[in-house]
Amino acid sequence: MKKLINKTEDVVKEELEGIALAHPDLVKVHFEPHYVYRANSPVKGKVALVSGGGSGHEPMHGGFVGYGMLHAACPGAVFTSPTPDQMLEAAKTVDGGKGVLFIVKNYSGDVMNFEMAADLAKMEDIEVESVIIDDDVAVQDSLYTAGRRGVGSTVLAEKLCGAAAEQGQSLSQVADICRKVNANGRSMGMALTSCTVPHVGKPTFDLPEDEMEIGIGIHGEPGRTRMKLKSADEIVEMLMTAVIQDLPYKKSDRVLLFVNSMGGTPLIELYIAYRKAHQIAENHGLVVARNLVGPYITSLEMAGMSVTLLKLDDELVSLWDAPVHTPALRWGT
Amino acid sequence: MKKLINKTEDVVKEELEGIALAHPDLVKVHFEPHYVYRANSPVKGKVALVSGGGSGHEPMHGGFVGYGMLHAACPGAVFTSPTPDQMLEAAKTVDGGKGVLFIVKNYSGDVMNFEMAADLAKMEDIEVESVIIDDDVAVQDSLYTAGRRGVGSTVLAEKLCGAAAEQGQSLSQVADICRKVNANGRSMGMALTSCTVPHVGKPTFDLPEDEMEIGIGIHGEPGRTRMKLKSADEIVEMLMTAVIQDLPYKKSDRVLLFVNSMGGTPLIELYIAYRKAHQIAENHGLVVARNLVGPYITSLEMAGMSVTLLKLDDELVSLWDAPVHTPALRWGT
Repeated sequence: MKKLINKTEDVVKEELEGIALAHPDLVKVHFEPHYVYRANSPVKGKVALVSGGGSGHEPMHGGFVGYGMLHAACPGAVFTSPTPDQMLEAAKTVDGGKGVLFIVKNYSGDVMNFEMAADLAKMEDIEVESVIIDDDVAVQDSLYTAGRRGVGSTVLAEKLCGAAAEQGQSLSQVADICRKVNANGRSMGMALTSCTVPHVGKPTFDLPEDEMEIGIGIHGEPGRTRMKLKSADEIVEMLMTAVIQDLPYKKSDRVLLFVNSMGGTPLIELYIAYRKAHQIAENHGLVVARNLVGPYITSLEMAGMSVTLLKLDDELVSLWDAPVHTPALRWGT
Repeated sequence: MKKLINKTEDVVKEELEGIALAHPDLVKVHFEPHYVYRANSPVKGKVALVSGGGSGHEPMHGGFVGYGMLHAACPGAVFTSPTPDQMLEAAKTVDGGKGVLFIVKNYSGDVMNFEMAADLAKMEDIEVESVIIDDDVAVQDSLYTAGRRGVGSTVLAEKLCGAAAEQGQSLSQVADICRKVNANGRSMGMALTSCTVPHVGKPTFDLPEDEMEIGIGIHGEPGRTRMKLKSADEIVEMLMTAVIQDLPYKKSDRVLLFVNSMGGTPLIELYIAYRKAHQIAENHGLVVARNLVGPYITSLEMAGMSVTLLKLDDELVSLWDAPVHTPALRWGT
């Protein structure tokens, strides 16, 4: 296992120490229980957004804490759900009196623990709503999920809901936007290589030199099919077709096209993939009104990519364009 | 070779097509000869910054074209210098009447071709200055270089000089800032794995599973030494010590600390490395006043990292904080 780490049990703690040292103007980190929260918490009079999940998907979620996006993020161990006490403490720290929205990716452990945290928070008189993201069209159920998995739309939901919260919208309004994003977003991913979980020390799965996995999950969970390696254009065609057919999108729909690296795929390849995804969207009559290209929801050092399409309306375009200032996503400030 | 590409001979062209489709508000791409330039070129009355080099280091340089940074970037084939005709055409396209600064990484081919382009541009009455970046402390000469190689300081120079140009500073003033950045910046990198040049199809070098290369170049050129894999903290200590001793930096110096991924190293590991680099800088009495963490000057999918330290003064801090809006670096707009 070749990684820039020290002891495997210290990976998450030391990564969080790095985030705290690199971005003291934006975030603070609480240890035991671990959570990343805005340096100016609590933001009075605004709905607070809390998300979280297993580590290993960086910059998600800790890199999305800051103005116009999340108020706190709860990192579990690598590919392991965070615990209810992390979520509860984070919620208490960032609650500005207008309630807390939990944005939850649909994995059984995350869903169960965020539910428990919501119950505990309510007992402390914090108003909580939870929205589950389940946008991955690849498989219906999976190793860690009943129903579809939550992937790329999570990044978009955190940005869009963060902008709504910043505008002073109410908890139910912000939760409605989150549900709208989930209803109008679809994703699918693929892997060229496995990743290696630090404390496991060997690749999660074996993938021969001439094969790839289509529909992979962000924890290396099996996807739809394993097949011989194909060209970037053929791969993107498979992902985009599955995504476009699922909603379905209609001609002239405005969309946000998000082409994401799983971690080990560099930008030179990602732009080749973006090119084809954009062309396919246009060939279907879709208008690519906004986009995002880069590593935003990753799977450690896995080589591979995912595409996410989100159908936009005027409200979502305006929320997308609103200022954001986090370690990983920044504009307008 | 597992990559998201189509034909190996189309990698650069298709990547540029992707950039053009993804960022039409910021950049345009000219093909044959290839160069990326600002959508609003030429910017009248401002010094124009042109850089370039082999492809495979994305987002450098094409991702740095935009407000507050470069005016044009000339990509060669992967790890191959661009040609004088690319540089000349780019310079003619972006010259706003105040002259053109060529920012050149110190590789023999780049230096020779930018010199030739400068001569050709002068024959067309375009005022040109060239500054060579040679900040890599690892080796004195290398496979592709007489003298030190140009690496991480290039990213910083492009940002800082871009801000100066935007302020309306003259060509000689902007060139002076570039020379100041180079004089006060030092870098060193390392690799856990090799990268694979697409048209070669096999790794540039073999690195056993338990070994790493310290002082690697961004084309996989040999570094100072190959040794058994060590912990992240030990690796960062080696890089930081070499960098800090080289200038030398003095107690209480303000510095910008740039921790860069070579492409395949994900953010979770990079923040672990940043943490240690920041601590070491502080232990030497340096004040980490600004920082940058991420993949900005890469070597295809190589796993590894580099550190760059730049000694700051009030002028450089102010130029760093100035607005920038490019595909890869954005704030204040």
